Amino acid sequence: MRFSEFSAGMVITAGPYAVNEAEVLQFAKAYDPQWFHTDPEAAKESRFGGLIASGWHTCGIAMRLMADKVLHGSESFASPGLAYIKWPHPVRPGDALTVQATVLEVRVARSQPTMGILRWRWQMRNAHDTEVLDLEATSLFDLTPSPASPSVLPAP
Amino acid sequence: MRFSEFSAGMVITAGPYAVNEAEVLQFAKAYDPQWFHTDPEAAKESRFGGLIASGWHTCGIAMRLMADKVLHGSESFASPGLAYIKWPHPVRPGDALTVQATVLEVRVARSQPTMGILRWRWQMRNAHDTEVLDLEATSLFDLTPSPASPSVLPAP
Repeated sequence: MRFSEFSAGMVITAGPYAVNEAEVLQFAKAYDPQWFHTDPEAAKESRFGGLIASGWHTCGIAMRLMADKVLHGSESFASPGLAYIKWPHPVRPGDALTVQATVLEVRVARSQPTMGILRWRWQMRNAHDTEVLDLEATSLFDLTPSPASPSVLPAP
Repeated sequence: MRFSEFSAGMVITAGPYAVNEAEVLQFAKAYDPQWFHTDPEAAKESRFGGLIASGWHTCGIAMRLMADKVLHGSESFASPGLAYIKWPHPVRPGDALTVQATVLEVRVARSQPTMGILRWRWQMRNAHDTEVLDLEATSLFDLTPSPASPSVLPAP
């Protein structure tokens, strides 16, 4: 999508993303090696009764869905951050995740007319309609009007 | 560290974590396949003048450092979320990242005496002392006093 296509109130959905145990373990071993993310047997005795994905993995999955569906081929070039993240329920192997993005605000930076600012809320749910992620992100778009601008290169 | 060892005002540092291009590309291809994270040549023409890591990868690196240094062997079992995330500057291949955690609040849940709540701020910097991440997280600890509790299992 191009920056000009976003408007406040717009709702975009992407997914499903199928989560499997191998990926949960691989992510956790690299970035969040806590036993309830890395040891399926031990995790059966945890408060959640089984292996759960790292919250950062959950975020990565939402990002992947939105990158493929929305940001691919856009002028997106960075994010300054997020207003909040909530992980209301855990992601588990076998889950099929769908993300819903609601556009909250679309504007051009006052100080920089070539910078588009998108503020949007992402909510991700599993197939039981249980919410596993809720966040509010700001994304920046490069509106430099040059045909040679990298912002118009196709995403690989 | 055990939950009882945390106190407000405590500062904990961990790192450095050496970032290389292969890892930046691998993470981005899986979770954030935008061209400025996945294509080193095209990224030279971006606003940042070179390949930058996904912000989610930056978070994963901070998590890994804190998991190894602080949460390993603790009663940590989950996080309900984060108050905010800021990515003030990008992470690049070649960076050596160090995270500093400042404990903001340590308390036992009013409604659940076996749940410890830790609120802490993580700030990560590169070797030039440039801040690449700033977030405030809440972490939950299982204080169930049972020797068979999974909270006292060693991390794998």
